[in-house]
Amino acid sequence: MSTNDKLPSRGENFSEWYNQLVLKAELADYAPVRGCMVVRPYGWTLWENIQQALDRRFKETGHVNAAFPLLIPKSFLEKEKEHVEGFSPELAVVTIGGGETLEEPLIIRPTSETIIGHMYSKWIKSYRDLPVLINQWGNVVRWEMRTRLFLRTLEFYWQEGHTAHATSQEAEEETIRMLNVYADFAINEAAVPVIPGLKSDQEKFAGAVRSYTIEAMMGDTRALQSGTSHFLGQNFAHAFDIQFLDWNNELQFAWTTSWGLSTRFVGAIIMTHGDDQGLVLPPKLAPIQVVIVPIHKNDAEKSAVLEVVERLRQELRGFRIKVDDRSEVTPGFKFNDWEMRGVPLRIEIGPKDVEKGSVALARRDLPGKAGKSFVPQQGLSIQVEQTLGQIHKSMFERALAFRQGNTHDPQSYDELLQVVQTGWALSWWCESAECEAKVKEASKATTRCIPLDQPGGEGRCIVCGEPARRKVYFARAY
Amino acid sequence: MSTNDKLPSRGENFSEWYNQLVLKAELADYAPVRGCMVVRPYGWTLWENIQQALDRRFKETGHVNAAFPLLIPKSFLEKEKEHVEGFSPELAVVTIGGGETLEEPLIIRPTSETIIGHMYSKWIKSYRDLPVLINQWGNVVRWEMRTRLFLRTLEFYWQEGHTAHATSQEAEEETIRMLNVYADFAINEAAVPVIPGLKSDQEKFAGAVRSYTIEAMMGDTRALQSGTSHFLGQNFAHAFDIQFLDWNNELQFAWTTSWGLSTRFVGAIIMTHGDDQGLVLPPKLAPIQVVIVPIHKNDAEKSAVLEVVERLRQELRGFRIKVDDRSEVTPGFKFNDWEMRGVPLRIEIGPKDVEKGSVALARRDLPGKAGKSFVPQQGLSIQVEQTLGQIHKSMFERALAFRQGNTHDPQSYDELLQVVQTGWALSWWCESAECEAKVKEASKATTRCIPLDQPGGEGRCIVCGEPARRKVYFARAY
Repeated sequence: MSTNDKLPSRGENFSEWYNQLVLKAELADYAPVRGCMVVRPYGWTLWENIQQALDRRFKETGHVNAAFPLLIPKSFLEKEKEHVEGFSPELAVVTIGGGETLEEPLIIRPTSETIIGHMYSKWIKSYRDLPVLINQWGNVVRWEMRTRLFLRTLEFYWQEGHTAHATSQEAEEETIRMLNVYADFAINEAAVPVIPGLKSDQEKFAGAVRSYTIEAMMGDTRALQSGTSHFLGQNFAHAFDIQFLDWNNELQFAWTTSWGLSTRFVGAIIMTHGDDQGLVLPPKLAPIQVVIVPIHKNDAEKSAVLEVVERLRQELRGFRIKVDDRSEVTPGFKFNDWEMRGVPLRIEIGPKDVEKGSVALARRDLPGKAGKSFVPQQGLSIQVEQTLGQIHKSMFERALAFRQGNTHDPQSYDELLQVVQTGWALSWWCESAECEAKVKEASKATTRCIPLDQPGGEGRCIVCGEPARRKVYFARAY
Repeated sequence: MSTNDKLPSRGENFSEWYNQLVLKAELADYAPVRGCMVVRPYGWTLWENIQQALDRRFKETGHVNAAFPLLIPKSFLEKEKEHVEGFSPELAVVTIGGGETLEEPLIIRPTSETIIGHMYSKWIKSYRDLPVLINQWGNVVRWEMRTRLFLRTLEFYWQEGHTAHATSQEAEEETIRMLNVYADFAINEAAVPVIPGLKSDQEKFAGAVRSYTIEAMMGDTRALQSGTSHFLGQNFAHAFDIQFLDWNNELQFAWTTSWGLSTRFVGAIIMTHGDDQGLVLPPKLAPIQVVIVPIHKNDAEKSAVLEVVERLRQELRGFRIKVDDRSEVTPGFKFNDWEMRGVPLRIEIGPKDVEKGSVALARRDLPGKAGKSFVPQQGLSIQVEQTLGQIHKSMFERALAFRQGNTHDPQSYDELLQVVQTGWALSWWCESAECEAKVKEASKATTRCIPLDQPGGEGRCIVCGEPARRKVYFARAY
């Protein structure tokens, strides 16, 4: 597919739009092993920007990074009952090393609670060693059957935070703190509105006491779980014997948490903001924030234009910019190309702009005339900064309005089943597994989360009519 | 082992000094799987600082990052004959995925030339697509038998650059460019003097036409290969069919390179600079550049001292600093502790310093009185910056003088065999595999590299007496 071939429209076939766009924008490609992906430079730079934005927040909240091994003895997984049940079907197993069959097979980590729990039991001896606040950036492998680039791949990239605390309360606070860090990141860096909330027992992490999530609505109204934070109680501390001497010199089991956000979030960005022309990337994370396209018809024009371009490139060096000076394609081709790649802001400079001391700005989030303006070259850096800020704001507001417009308050069970076909429902729920299963069976919609922000009061379960204390989001999900 | 237990001295047992220091300074720990390591936060922060210093240089030389999969079909490795011979004995093999035996076993990448070659053959069609300049930060697995923390582990962390070019000359230039990037990094960030040079055919990378290396002398005079850059010719382009249409519209095979530097370099830093008190970390890479130790005997002193400490913490916020305000240990304990951990500069502040408006500075690289000075609090930031610069310079010069003092110019084969027991030899060599093998057999010393910087002229091979065009370093190596 050449770069100017047309994408399927989102309305026509959202799923194909997504698949083709990821390839066409050169975010990722299929690897030769089923279900694995290659993250190409444009996609990886986006991920690096996500990493930096998160890592800064992790360090500000007192965390440090470390690296734990990829390979875990198979027996480790079996020490936590729910954990092994959850992950056993998804394991990649190394049985041969250095030409010899291994005595104990090793698994490639699907997540690192077990290996990290083992190490924490060695390191933590006293309350003085607590809290331990460690994060790891790395790759994990889960043998998924139905895979899609970024959304669900055999190998994926993520960060996993693992913390240990002296008290239950501290661990719970940490769990919520990191959930809030994710929400803050999603909103303020990615312009992705998210709902922070609690997972149901059926949907929680295998081995957790409670799992929290940030849920986002994609452009087809499906939900995407975009980051999770787990309060693990003392489950892993018991399984791996993480004990410490407390202030009274008595042995106690530690309280642990884990929290993760993965390359799946790249999918969240694509599906929250993209349109029929392609990607629309949030300015703070975009690999290229500003593309400059020089326009000229002859050598005299070219040299006058490029002189200004060079000056502006200098002025804009605080931004991630790209000058597209290719001679083998037309400006129109370039406009389409960079729109497809989602660059937030385009600057066009032609001979008239040189004369007038102006440039044309084109916002990616407002296609056509609405997003176009002519501004002086003087003070361009400030103008660009302000415009990128406006783009972020308008992307967020549009996504929020879309979610609100597609979130329903059904008045009956039948209406619930109907509205979740094209949106989310926020409804009272009695919190029984039966009601949850019934909805899933009838509509494929699952409980996404019990939002932390509740309306208050009480209601009747939308499914069974029994008293309900909290509302829950029902939605079809990725 | 508690933190103030004594290390073995380097002279007594260098190897045990190294092993115990890595554990004691909390750089790394043994993982439950034989030969794997956990890189602890202090060690990982050092690695992150190495990563940033290198990544900046990679980007300045036009490279971008991407991520290729961990799992590679076994058949891929077999496409390049020398490559498979080199790596086959070291493979970790996944034979089970999702509970099923795999039709084709997958290997965990020991290096990524094959999978990247496969992708490049998809992406590269025309000379316009070249050069491709991609780097990857990641983990690889090699099933080593004799392992040591950082120096040789089953799983290790590294970057591997993989580039493709239209001409042989461009690829050769790239190979040397990246070798020079490594040398520049080693010297200017890590204060590790290195010799850039060419590997012998016996010592080169499996599948390369030519391999280059930076070699460093460790504190026991052994050599450590600290980074390598390979000119791969068209070997991998033939094996993976990386072809492009050239300017004349004719199909050509691309020319490729690869280059890597790993967590092994952490070992280079430890063994180049460390002393009997522990680590001595180069200021530009040290996780903590400056530690402030407040000294006080009573509450009045404490509050006066901590007020100054807080002010200086603000003034020094441009540095990576740590205030050690632990109350359960003495200042003397803290001095030893941070010396063992290699913090380049210590600032002591006691009641007298508060009175005088001064602080005591103690340089890690000059133990005792020689490294101690008293300076005004006023302008401390500039003083610290200058002192860290001096520390870097003096660490580099000391390591260089050590290497020079232990590099010999033996006049006979017998003398060669003798000097390589306690140092390096720089000698004329006829470049035959036989002479190289003979020295190895007799002394365990191998050819480390033919330095790019040659004395000129000609000589006689130190082993066989035949004419020789270039000198080579012989040394025992890690």
